[in-house]
Amino acid sequence: MRVLITGAGGFLGRALVRILAGAHQVVALDRDCGSVPRGGNVACVTGDIADPEVQARAVGNGCDALIHLATIPGGAAEQDPEAARRVNLDAGISLVEAAARAGTRPRLLFASSIAVLGDQLPESVDDSTPLRPSLVYGAHKAMMEQWLATLTRRGAISGLSLRLPGIVARPPGTSGLKSAFVSEVFHAALSARAFICPVSAEATMWLMSADRAAANFRHALENGTQGGEPFALTLPAVRTSMGALVEEIARQAGSDPDLVSYEPDPALEARFGRYPPLDAPAARAAGFSDDGSLEDLVAAAIAHVGDEG
Amino acid sequence: MRVLITGAGGFLGRALVRILAGAHQVVALDRDCGSVPRGGNVACVTGDIADPEVQARAVGNGCDALIHLATIPGGAAEQDPEAARRVNLDAGISLVEAAARAGTRPRLLFASSIAVLGDQLPESVDDSTPLRPSLVYGAHKAMMEQWLATLTRRGAISGLSLRLPGIVARPPGTSGLKSAFVSEVFHAALSARAFICPVSAEATMWLMSADRAAANFRHALENGTQGGEPFALTLPAVRTSMGALVEEIARQAGSDPDLVSYEPDPALEARFGRYPPLDAPAARAAGFSDDGSLEDLVAAAIAHVGDEG
Repeated sequence: MRVLITGAGGFLGRALVRILAGAHQVVALDRDCGSVPRGGNVACVTGDIADPEVQARAVGNGCDALIHLATIPGGAAEQDPEAARRVNLDAGISLVEAAARAGTRPRLLFASSIAVLGDQLPESVDDSTPLRPSLVYGAHKAMMEQWLATLTRRGAISGLSLRLPGIVARPPGTSGLKSAFVSEVFHAALSARAFICPVSAEATMWLMSADRAAANFRHALENGTQGGEPFALTLPAVRTSMGALVEEIARQAGSDPDLVSYEPDPALEARFGRYPPLDAPAARAAGFSDDGSLEDLVAAAIAHVGDEG
Repeated sequence: MRVLITGAGGFLGRALVRILAGAHQVVALDRDCGSVPRGGNVACVTGDIADPEVQARAVGNGCDALIHLATIPGGAAEQDPEAARRVNLDAGISLVEAAARAGTRPRLLFASSIAVLGDQLPESVDDSTPLRPSLVYGAHKAMMEQWLATLTRRGAISGLSLRLPGIVARPPGTSGLKSAFVSEVFHAALSARAFICPVSAEATMWLMSADRAAANFRHALENGTQGGEPFALTLPAVRTSMGALVEEIARQAGSDPDLVSYEPDPALEARFGRYPPLDAPAARAAGFSDDGSLEDLVAAAIAHVGDEG
C-alpha cells in the first residue's frame, strides 16, 4: 500500500514509520523530515501541511491510506487558536478532501485524542460517554471526527478516528503539550535527576507507549475492511496514579523514587490528574489494545527512549 | 438588546425580525436586505457573510446576541460542497469568534438542523440518538454545534444550537432544499393547482411553522441564562404523513385533495419520508414547543403565506 503519514517526523510518526516501512510504501510528510526514519520504502515530502501545494505534492496520484497525525498540541493550540484552526481543522479537511478526490476510497486514520471527552469526566468513562471538549484542541479533534465519519458514510473514504491517551515517553523539551510532565518524569529518572511533579501522587491518568499506539494504527491500517459504525474509537489505555508510575519507573530505571517531589498545580491536576476508570469495549472488540500492564507500559516507554537516542 | 441576525432576509429570518424588532435593536445581515422587514429598530448590513470586512461591520462594537441563521441549504450544499464549507462552516466559525471577541459573553443561537441525525434513523428518535449526518450540510451543522458548545463551556459565549425540523411553507421557487416539496404542496393547494408529490402518501416527516420556529428562537434569546448542558437541542415537531398533510391543507384551503397525485422518488422517500416518532424532552423541559397539532401547523403555515404577500 502507498501510505501517506502526516506528522511523520513527530514522536508517534517516527514509531509508525519504523513499523510500516518494511511492509508498505511510506510517504512521510512533515515540516522537517530530518528526524524521519529512512529506508528503501520511505519517501519524504517537506512542507507546511496547510499549504495546498504541499498537500497536492504529498497526495500525488492518490494514496491507499492516509494516516493523519500532524497536529498542533493542546497547550500550543490554547496559546494560538488561529494557528490551531489552520492546522488542526482547515488543513485536515483539505488534505482529506485531496486524498478522497485522488484515490479510490482511501483508508483514512486520524489521530484523535481523549481531549474530545473534555475535563468534566463522569465516575467512569466508556463508549457512551458524550463528547464535551473544553480545549480548542479537543473541539477541533471532535469536529474532524464528525467530518471523517460523514465522508465514510458517504463512501468517499474508509475513515476511523482513534482517540489516543497520553503517549509516553515523549522526547524532552517543549512539546507544546500541557501534559509533558508525564514524559519528563521518565527522563528525570533515567538520568537520576530530581523532579518536581506538578500533579499529586494520587493524580490518575491514561497512558500508552508510542510503540503500542503505532501498533494500533498498523492494526487499523491492515484491517481496513471491518468497517461499520462507530467511526471513532476511544482506545483502551493503562490507567495509573502518578505515584505508582513514579515507583515503577524508579524500579525499572534503578533510580531513587524519592528524587520525585510533588507540588501539585491545581489547574494541571484538574485537567490531567482526574482520569476515572476507562472501559473501551468497542475498540477492544475491533482488536485494539493497551500496553497490558503498568510494568509493560513503563518497559516499552523506556525501551523507546533508548531507540530515540 | 442589540441582536445581530444573519440570513435575516430569508424565510425564517424575516419571521424572526418581525417578532423581535418591537422589543430589541435588530441588526439584519444578508446578501440582499431587500426583503428584510423594516422598522425603527432594524438596521441592515448587506454583504457576504464569509467576508471578514462584512463580519466586522455587522458585529460592530459587539452585540448582546447573535442569531446565526444564514446557511447554504442541504441540496445546494451537496451540489457545491466548497461553497457549503465556506459559508456553513468557515464563515460561521469566524463570525462567532468576532462576536465573542467584541462582546461580553454574547448569547449565540445557531440554526442547526435535524440533518445532523442523518438518514438512517432508529425506530424512534430522542435526545440520546447519536448524530450520524450523511449530508455535507448535516456534517457542517454538527461541527458548528460542537464548536459552539466548546466555546460555551469555555465561557466565551452563551451558546445554544436549535435543531430545526422542516419549516413550512417556504416561498415558491428554488430554495436549494431537497425537501422543498413539503412547501410546494401548500402553494399548489392555495392556488388550486394539480401537484405531483415526489414522496408517497405514507411518507412521514417532522414539520414546524416559521412563526413557531421564530417563537422558539425568541424564547431562547430572552431566557438566555438557563444554561447548562446540553448546548444543542432537537426541537419538538409535528409528525405527519404526507397524506394527512395533504388532506388538512385541502380542508383549510378549500381545495380538492385529489389534485395531489403521488409519484414517489425512492431517494427522496428514503431521505425525507421516513421520520419515525420524535421525543424531544430536553427541549420541551427548556420551554420550546412545536405547533401543537397538524391543524394548528397548517393554519400557521397558511397564515404565513399570506404575510409574505
